Amino acid sequence: VPTFKLTIAYDGAAYAGWQAQPAVRTVQGTFEATLEKITGESVRVTASGRTDAGVHALGQVVSLVLSTSLPPDVLLRAFNAELPNDIAVLSAEIAVDGFHAIRDARRKRYRYLLHDGPVRSVLWRRYCWHLPYQLDEGAMHRAAQGLVGTHDYSSFETSGTERLTSIRTVFALSVTRRPTDELLSRADQDLPLVAVEIEADGFLYNMVRAIVGTLVEVGRGTQTEAWPAEVLAAGDRRAAGRTAPPQGLFLVEVQYDPPTKGG
Amino acid sequence: VPTFKLTIAYDGAAYAGWQAQPAVRTVQGTFEATLEKITGESVRVTASGRTDAGVHALGQVVSLVLSTSLPPDVLLRAFNAELPNDIAVLSAEIAVDGFHAIRDARRKRYRYLLHDGPVRSVLWRRYCWHLPYQLDEGAMHRAAQGLVGTHDYSSFETSGTERLTSIRTVFALSVTRRPTDELLSRADQDLPLVAVEIEADGFLYNMVRAIVGTLVEVGRGTQTEAWPAEVLAAGDRRAAGRTAPPQGLFLVEVQYDPPTKGG
Repeated sequence: VPTFKLTIAYDGAAYAGWQAQPAVRTVQGTFEATLEKITGESVRVTASGRTDAGVHALGQVVSLVLSTSLPPDVLLRAFNAELPNDIAVLSAEIAVDGFHAIRDARRKRYRYLLHDGPVRSVLWRRYCWHLPYQLDEGAMHRAAQGLVGTHDYSSFETSGTERLTSIRTVFALSVTRRPTDELLSRADQDLPLVAVEIEADGFLYNMVRAIVGTLVEVGRGTQTEAWPAEVLAAGDRRAAGRTAPPQGLFLVEVQYDPPTKGG
Repeated sequence: VPTFKLTIAYDGAAYAGWQAQPAVRTVQGTFEATLEKITGESVRVTASGRTDAGVHALGQVVSLVLSTSLPPDVLLRAFNAELPNDIAVLSAEIAVDGFHAIRDARRKRYRYLLHDGPVRSVLWRRYCWHLPYQLDEGAMHRAAQGLVGTHDYSSFETSGTERLTSIRTVFALSVTRRPTDELLSRADQDLPLVAVEIEADGFLYNMVRAIVGTLVEVGRGTQTEAWPAEVLAAGDRRAAGRTAPPQGLFLVEVQYDPPTKGG
């Protein structure tokens, strides 16, 4: 009975998040229905973590156990032939026995894209948060460094999910202006996006979006660069900025320990 | 009575093309309804040309005559506040009297994006044609040069629209592989796109999409580099490749003569 590790991507726009729920379209539900269609097996699949409604994934990792053996490349092609075109399997491999996409995850990296400019982009709008004022990405980056480290991130957590502790370690948090290629814009229509990249050993519910909403207050000049660290220290969600909308958020990568000898 | 020249962008996915038609959602219909909401005037707007269902515009040009004077920047902001978020006005100016977006257009530039790779991109899929095999963009570019010049492009025309002549001048036609920035992909998931750019004094119905469908046959190796020029010479639509799907096509730019003194 092989355990598979799949890396998948999805556009979250049409889904009520990852987790299967009755009567709504979710990525997990769609994925499991496709798996049943391919293999005839009704199997639960495990992702490294839930993503919320409207959030995208560039590299979500999924584990699943099938009772029949199947070459990974056959499984990959069968998935990509049967899945709707807003979900894709990027890679498939046999994992060590007992591999579990949640429990074994060590680090995750998220990206959040902001577009600051007077006119929205009709093509990028699905993948960023449009703000009609200029952001100071340097101030945002400096302010963000006060959120790096091992801390209680309660100030950046939307309540409602169970977890043992709200202490997490943020390894890196950067805010940079990224010139976009000109494929989806005109040469005379500059469209620089501001990217927030954050890597941690885990994330609380809505943590990235609350951090982004807080950093945006610094970027627009309504709060000081010292403020995000003060919000962190307050330990109170009401101290932080608003929750940034979902369409700008991407789960980029999930890191695991190198595989050890299978049992 | 001022004549306005507006440059607009739209995501064509949700529209049955530019041209207003009864009972379907079109860009023109949406635009005119918004204009009436803003100004109270029921006015017909003129675009440089129709775009088909699903085709995008990065820089469509529109002319319209209002009976009341209104500063262009006020009109721009009012449009962007009231339009759905898949249409945007990029710039607005007062044109010389009598300016007409179709009649006065001198050159147009279109872009077509192709993604050649084994797995579709869930985020780029809205803006490209995914082909599951590798394209030879150098062969496509060389073949494309046989289509440049002043010719009868009947072979690349879908019949059904009235026009005086099927002779057009293609000034430039390039096929290049364009590395995308990594904002919508992972660093380890290479996503090079092949861009076809074509500039002409005008285009027949479906001309760009028929040219792309023809060049793709060269790129995948099923036809020689000499073949597109032979298709052109045949003067027969049945000689050409298939019509590429709409979501990869963008109207990038429309060029006009420099404005002369207004009348």
